[in-house]
Amino acid sequence: MIELPPLTAAPNQAELLVTHEAIHPFVHRTPVMTNTSIDERTGARLFFKCENFQRIGAFKMRGGASAALRFTPEQRQRGLATHSSGNHAQAVAKAAQVLGVPAYIVMPHDAPRVKVAAVEGYGATVTYCNNTPRERQATLDEVVGRTGAAFIHPFDDYGVIAGQATAAMELIEDVDKVLDLIVTPVGGGGLLAGTALAARYFSVRAEVIGAEPAAVDDAHRSFRSGRIEENETNVTVADGLRTNLGERTFPIIRDYVKEILLVEEDEIIAAMRLIWERMKIIVEPSCAVPLAVVLRYPDVFAGRRVGIILTGGNVDVDRLPF
Amino acid sequence: MIELPPLTAAPNQAELLVTHEAIHPFVHRTPVMTNTSIDERTGARLFFKCENFQRIGAFKMRGGASAALRFTPEQRQRGLATHSSGNHAQAVAKAAQVLGVPAYIVMPHDAPRVKVAAVEGYGATVTYCNNTPRERQATLDEVVGRTGAAFIHPFDDYGVIAGQATAAMELIEDVDKVLDLIVTPVGGGGLLAGTALAARYFSVRAEVIGAEPAAVDDAHRSFRSGRIEENETNVTVADGLRTNLGERTFPIIRDYVKEILLVEEDEIIAAMRLIWERMKIIVEPSCAVPLAVVLRYPDVFAGRRVGIILTGGNVDVDRLPF
Repeated sequence: MIELPPLTAAPNQAELLVTHEAIHPFVHRTPVMTNTSIDERTGARLFFKCENFQRIGAFKMRGGASAALRFTPEQRQRGLATHSSGNHAQAVAKAAQVLGVPAYIVMPHDAPRVKVAAVEGYGATVTYCNNTPRERQATLDEVVGRTGAAFIHPFDDYGVIAGQATAAMELIEDVDKVLDLIVTPVGGGGLLAGTALAARYFSVRAEVIGAEPAAVDDAHRSFRSGRIEENETNVTVADGLRTNLGERTFPIIRDYVKEILLVEEDEIIAAMRLIWERMKIIVEPSCAVPLAVVLRYPDVFAGRRVGIILTGGNVDVDRLPF
Repeated sequence: MIELPPLTAAPNQAELLVTHEAIHPFVHRTPVMTNTSIDERTGARLFFKCENFQRIGAFKMRGGASAALRFTPEQRQRGLATHSSGNHAQAVAKAAQVLGVPAYIVMPHDAPRVKVAAVEGYGATVTYCNNTPRERQATLDEVVGRTGAAFIHPFDDYGVIAGQATAAMELIEDVDKVLDLIVTPVGGGGLLAGTALAARYFSVRAEVIGAEPAAVDDAHRSFRSGRIEENETNVTVADGLRTNLGERTFPIIRDYVKEILLVEEDEIIAAMRLIWERMKIIVEPSCAVPLAVVLRYPDVFAGRRVGIILTGGNVDVDRLPF
């Protein structure tokens, strides 16, 4: 097991390379898929990095592993902790399972039963709380105080950012550095920041674009205003993208991302359906936001070679948005 | 373009090799996927040949191309014809499109609109008929008589069988000939017969098993009785497997297939859902029958290395069986 040093600033090129080596026991090398009919529809040449095939069904495994390895073995022995009702919860639980240490996950009472079952399936201990930021934090503080477990933030953590960067590193490696653009969704910004760093260090010329639901356009507004903006609502089908940017993710995004483009809810659902029907793969709504952006802004993407990080496939097939 | 000679008997090893070369312009080399959690659930080591990622979304592209190339260019010039409301219709339409010749597809009036649209999307001319075998044949005869188009049977054709064999050839090549068993669904038997020939010619030791819905168990009964049996009903969620075996497919299956195993409807639906949820890929109900068989008969499969041909992913996502 490669131990990683803590990061107190945005990771540099060497730190990303060693991160990619270190997380190897925790992650799959996911394939890059192409699709002729979607290419024809968009006028672009698209390369889909399929993190829906990643362990736990989402790219979050990368950041969780990268962050977990930055604690000392003594720290880790007391366990890993986080609050999340989404893919990050599964990532921390799975990382702890691979490391053979306890995991403590704080989840809201109303979290989908299937998500709770997945986290418990990896051997984690779930503590329930009411679904407000204040209660979530208080419950986490209590759990960490009691267990001494090491907290892993879902995105605002340089270790997490370094881990998320490895998806784009593999994409860039696999498609021979021909990419003009790489598009990722943006919620808290861990993936977008990591991708921006990966492109800066490893791509010949790829620029990075964030894709965000117009209904929760905080990142778009932050990018324009130069400070972290908040959402007034969190109502979007792209349930992984409701969060605001963080203090660590925002400056990286501000400095190294080219643009953040917005799409409407119906465009997200149509793009999700297009991926299901044409690519025959299962992606969650948040995952479809980049393709929705490519479809909406042909002036930006037509005629270009575009990498898209397909972020995850954890969707309840009994409750589809189409 | 490699031209193929007509086949008047079951293809031999050399004929399969040249078929695989010849259909290259028509098909994708599909990936082989594995899945740890399904392996744990079954106790077997499974290798999934993902023909749901094939062009037109199903393995039928292979047989359609192989059969089309066995007509002379003069014959082909008058067009290709078939009757089908399923994946074979799309395969013939797409083969004709690649070859630059007309396609004439006879489909029942009540065929799903999405299937008709797909066939027309490849430039084929659709002729509607009532949904009985007699009317289908009469309409096809009329179309062929009028156009001089070359008819491609969905399965009972040595050219089609040779094409379907190429899926297992690639599977055997990719997983280093370690396979103990290969399982395919069985409807008319084109894929099962082709797979049995591929295993016989190219695998060190893999035996081939057919997977069939108990509700339409004609192949199972034919295998036992030694003659082609018919179904009394065609009610199964696995809508691609309702057909009886044919005069060309049956003897190959009888001679080279090890066993035909049956599963119930609820087992098929559960296996389909397991593939969706764990592998994050879209497969149609017929496609899930082999995994249902592996789950049902652990005495046959546990501890073995098993190839599964995932046959297709053309499912209406608005009308899922779960």
